[in-house]
Amino acid sequence: MIDYKDLNKTDSFSKLKAIKPFDIKRKLNAKRIEGASIKEAGSLVYNYGAMPVDDETITVLQALADEQQLIEKYRALLGGEIMNTGEKRLVLHQLTRGRALDGLKVMADGVEKGEFYENELRKIKDFSDKVRSGQIKGSTGKEIKTVVQIGIGGSDLGPRALCYALNLIGEKDGCKKKLEARFISNVDPDDACAVLQGLDLESTLFILVSKSGTTQETLANRDLVFKFMEKSGIKGLVPQKHVVAVTSNTSPLANNPDILAVFFMDDYIGGRYSATSPVGGVILSLTYGFDVFKQILDGAHAEDKVALEPDIRKNGTLMDAMIGVYLRNVLGYPYTAVLPYSQSLHRMPAHFQQLDMESNGKHVNRFGKVLDYKTGPVIFGEPGTNGQHSFYQLLHQGTDIVPMQFIGFKEKEGNLDAENGGSTSQTKLKANLVAQIVAFACGRENSENPNKAFEGSRPSSVLVADRLTPFALGSILAHFENKVMFQGFVWNINSFDQEGVQLGKILAKKVLAGCEGDENLLAYSKLLGIDF
Amino acid sequence: MIDYKDLNKTDSFSKLKAIKPFDIKRKLNAKRIEGASIKEAGSLVYNYGAMPVDDETITVLQALADEQQLIEKYRALLGGEIMNTGEKRLVLHQLTRGRALDGLKVMADGVEKGEFYENELRKIKDFSDKVRSGQIKGSTGKEIKTVVQIGIGGSDLGPRALCYALNLIGEKDGCKKKLEARFISNVDPDDACAVLQGLDLESTLFILVSKSGTTQETLANRDLVFKFMEKSGIKGLVPQKHVVAVTSNTSPLANNPDILAVFFMDDYIGGRYSATSPVGGVILSLTYGFDVFKQILDGAHAEDKVALEPDIRKNGTLMDAMIGVYLRNVLGYPYTAVLPYSQSLHRMPAHFQQLDMESNGKHVNRFGKVLDYKTGPVIFGEPGTNGQHSFYQLLHQGTDIVPMQFIGFKEKEGNLDAENGGSTSQTKLKANLVAQIVAFACGRENSENPNKAFEGSRPSSVLVADRLTPFALGSILAHFENKVMFQGFVWNINSFDQEGVQLGKILAKKVLAGCEGDENLLAYSKLLGIDF
Repeated sequence: MIDYKDLNKTDSFSKLKAIKPFDIKRKLNAKRIEGASIKEAGSLVYNYGAMPVDDETITVLQALADEQQLIEKYRALLGGEIMNTGEKRLVLHQLTRGRALDGLKVMADGVEKGEFYENELRKIKDFSDKVRSGQIKGSTGKEIKTVVQIGIGGSDLGPRALCYALNLIGEKDGCKKKLEARFISNVDPDDACAVLQGLDLESTLFILVSKSGTTQETLANRDLVFKFMEKSGIKGLVPQKHVVAVTSNTSPLANNPDILAVFFMDDYIGGRYSATSPVGGVILSLTYGFDVFKQILDGAHAEDKVALEPDIRKNGTLMDAMIGVYLRNVLGYPYTAVLPYSQSLHRMPAHFQQLDMESNGKHVNRFGKVLDYKTGPVIFGEPGTNGQHSFYQLLHQGTDIVPMQFIGFKEKEGNLDAENGGSTSQTKLKANLVAQIVAFACGRENSENPNKAFEGSRPSSVLVADRLTPFALGSILAHFENKVMFQGFVWNINSFDQEGVQLGKILAKKVLAGCEGDENLLAYSKLLGIDF
Repeated sequence: MIDYKDLNKTDSFSKLKAIKPFDIKRKLNAKRIEGASIKEAGSLVYNYGAMPVDDETITVLQALADEQQLIEKYRALLGGEIMNTGEKRLVLHQLTRGRALDGLKVMADGVEKGEFYENELRKIKDFSDKVRSGQIKGSTGKEIKTVVQIGIGGSDLGPRALCYALNLIGEKDGCKKKLEARFISNVDPDDACAVLQGLDLESTLFILVSKSGTTQETLANRDLVFKFMEKSGIKGLVPQKHVVAVTSNTSPLANNPDILAVFFMDDYIGGRYSATSPVGGVILSLTYGFDVFKQILDGAHAEDKVALEPDIRKNGTLMDAMIGVYLRNVLGYPYTAVLPYSQSLHRMPAHFQQLDMESNGKHVNRFGKVLDYKTGPVIFGEPGTNGQHSFYQLLHQGTDIVPMQFIGFKEKEGNLDAENGGSTSQTKLKANLVAQIVAFACGRENSENPNKAFEGSRPSSVLVADRLTPFALGSILAHFENKVMFQGFVWNINSFDQEGVQLGKILAKKVLAGCEGDENLLAYSKLLGIDF
């Protein structure tokens, strides 16, 4: 029987708070570091050696995970229970990459959802194969060379981060041909303007992505693109033959004659969890080939399976989630920096920022009761080593402690490197990551000049994979998704709705309708030069 | 006589803490909003209507600014006083755009620094004119069409953010021809690999940027690029004729035969303040023309001048800085979100993140004494409306309050827009900004369903300019630079050094030397697959 309790009603939380804080500074050693690695899917390893937890803390974190029934709740979610309590919906994004619970069927809306997603996958494979082979061409007979995704939020950040991550992919990772991927997201017309300038429209395919089919930004950008195509004066160009959609089957985009093809997602996949659904699948399959997208799914699926392990010492995602709760609710840190040592992952922090903050930035529990403890932290980050020359100053010597989540790879992704001063760039990159973890944890005293002193005790963890392959990318994505899910269970919140976006939408409509007499909206509209 | 005191030793700070908190939620009205605009340079306006300060608070903030002698310290800085106390250096980045104190000369290293920077400007104009007109060509005789900046931290983020910001610039803003700008920063070889693939080397010019001429990442990337050019097999390609440098005149890059031209900065310009020096000037002048870069300088210079105003009610930068101190040290908020409603400014938050966190993420005062109050906050941000579909959920309904700094423009930058549902995209963009400010400030009650309730009282300010011109861009840049400077004066810290980056550098060298027996470094090196 699953029971839903607030964190501060659990016995384990009281125990957790009573534990004497563990200072990593004087406790870090080789044995501890080596013993703090947990193997996850494929080559992925989570290491928490530099986190302020000892065996006693971990035992209580296990008890808390058990008391909050995290694995049971995860299994219930996979089994089709209504986990999005606000919107009364199932939560099925894991199912887009396979059945984490072998053989389990999930019925909803009169269909078996696993089959529904598999069918969409077949459609994606078929369509992307035909576009990539030149069987489906643009309306003037040119082969498609560029795909432009028009979507915002979850329809943009995840797919974009994954596309950028695989930028250097080649034949050894199963990509025989690359199309160029571009993205239009912002309602700011300058976004579309920048992407459209210099584009060869005849060889471009646009992907409209909106679950509801009513997203203001996406419809505005669709109209901008159509207008631009119509004005281009290109003979024989038929805009409708250059547009496909990813939407739900109840949306206005679903049965639209002005569209070449439609791929379906559904209400059980939140935007921020949709990268492995057709939302990410169509553009990734077009850009790099369906096989590459399938490897991402396989990596995510394998990770979903290892996340079922109840033993926190054998489940890196669970450990990561529970340490995060400890950092947030006992040690009181209000943020976490996500720092990939991989330039290819440069937009992954922005995706994880949405994933985490939109899921767990909540003030009520799953029953709608206002909570009196902290939930999700602020997430931010940039790639290393770049960040070292930027905001790391504050992380090292600022007046607050910012926990860090590093990501690193043993090997480079592309095929270029060179020696300089006796080491390759890839080795330098890794040496810097190693150095930062130890510098943050151990610090360095300087009694003569405190300006050169480092207090240390800055906690961090690191996720390591052999190389940034599509499989590893899928695993890393799922690691963060499942971490966020587990933390939502601990906090007893609904991680799958986003009511916080509604008020802004309502007021924006009001402004566009002339402010309806609201003096604050009127005054700010005047400041921004909006004419009524 | 200038006196340097810690914040908590001032009389005004005690008064500030004693003020009864002002809740913006029920106090926002048209009169307040209209009265809270301060005109800055050009069309720039700073509005603090939705900040939790009333007239009483502002009076005490003025007293604190006076007591900490902010304007006197700014004037001393402009006059050449040693403001970078840690490194015993002058701080002269404002001088790169003109003399904010009319006629004031600044001598250092035996030269008058204003003339020194003016001379570099003339060199930049001459060189960029010749490249853009085709007088200087690549080594095989092709015109230069792409410029690639190789630099990291301040040699990357500011110049990159400015280059991206002006992406849509055209003739009406003084740009007659555009070259393409690219950037290589990370020591990760995949960064260079991604930029170099598909580049026409014969028509590419590289700009090496490193003040010391010894930056690990930049030298490694220089060697990668040279190797790539040598291996290209292009007949007649002479790599040295495709490389210029921006460095100090004492660096190993200064008198280097392997370089086409050298432009100088000096030790009085911190990396994060160097966007208006040759660090930003060379690439911006090559990409958009010297006249465009000059307009940026003019906008920054005009802003430097208005920042001299001692009356906080007439000095938007000072008001912004002092409200920030109130949010940080009295209300206790550990972060600020920077949210430009302009896709062209998409990398500006990353630049301001460095500017602020590297300058003011300090734990000692300017005399090296450890402080017992908070200094610089964590800065993060993404463009709106994108953020609305991402992390704004937490900003609206999370368990913490995150102050926000919006940036908006009345008109679009590019020349594309369309109507959809009765309004243009640009109007929608502005309507969303207006809506967010009011939604954050006022919230909305919902006693029946707390999940749909918005607490409100989320503070924000907004910077508004008519349009994102080069002049406005320069003004916005200088606004943030000067805000950070003023806050550093209030906190009595040195905002111009960065000792916090040193320990990581030392330990990275140690790793590359085989870890020198450090078991922690060895254990993490093993985890990352570094072979010794």
